[in-house]
Amino acid sequence: MEQVTENRWSTQEKTIAKAALSAAQQRELESLIKVVRETAGQVTSIDEVWHLHDFLSARRFDIDGKYDDREDEILFVLAKLKKDGWVLSEDLAGLESAKISKITALTRVL
Amino acid sequence: MEQVTENRWSTQEKTIAKAALSAAQQRELESLIKVVRETAGQVTSIDEVWHLHDFLSARRFDIDGKYDDREDEILFVLAKLKKDGWVLSEDLAGLESAKISKITALTRVL
Repeated sequence: MEQVTENRWSTQEKTIAKAALSAAQQRELESLIKVVRETAGQVTSIDEVWHLHDFLSARRFDIDGKYDDREDEILFVLAKLKKDGWVLSEDLAGLESAKISKITALTRVL
Repeated sequence: MEQVTENRWSTQEKTIAKAALSAAQQRELESLIKVVRETAGQVTSIDEVWHLHDFLSARRFDIDGKYDDREDEILFVLAKLKKDGWVLSEDLAGLESAKISKITALTRVL
């Protein structure tokens, strides 16, 4: 059986992690589309338009940067996404328990 | 009577020019608010969201820059806004005819 540690990832774990990221990104983007449709569909002043623009700039910057699947970043990425509610516990099923524990611990400090 | 030329502006002409700019800006912003409400209220994909963001970035940059009421720029500004349909002929009533002619000529080359 392939040896894995908190810092080493089996092929299966890599697949699980990437799928978790992908599911989280899909959830976050769908939520953003819904928020834009609902709030932008109601704008009645130019201040609200520029506020929407600022909001989209911030969301785009954040989303472009955070779905980083490099092996040395992924525990942090998964923890942040779990904290924000985009990664669900069931997405992590199949990772070794040391990794899940570390992700859980990181969600408390990120 | 105060002497004015194409390059000199009477107090009354300055007031007319500023009012024309203000009316144009109001029209352009109201149009933008309406476009955002109608198009953003329909977004169903993330590509459409980012397209909206790009569109707002471009509109904001353009609008922030072009309502320039400095005396040495205003004929060009009025001509550009007239060409784009935001300044109307009646907004310019009261400017001396040399200025109106120059604005009309500029709309053909801008």
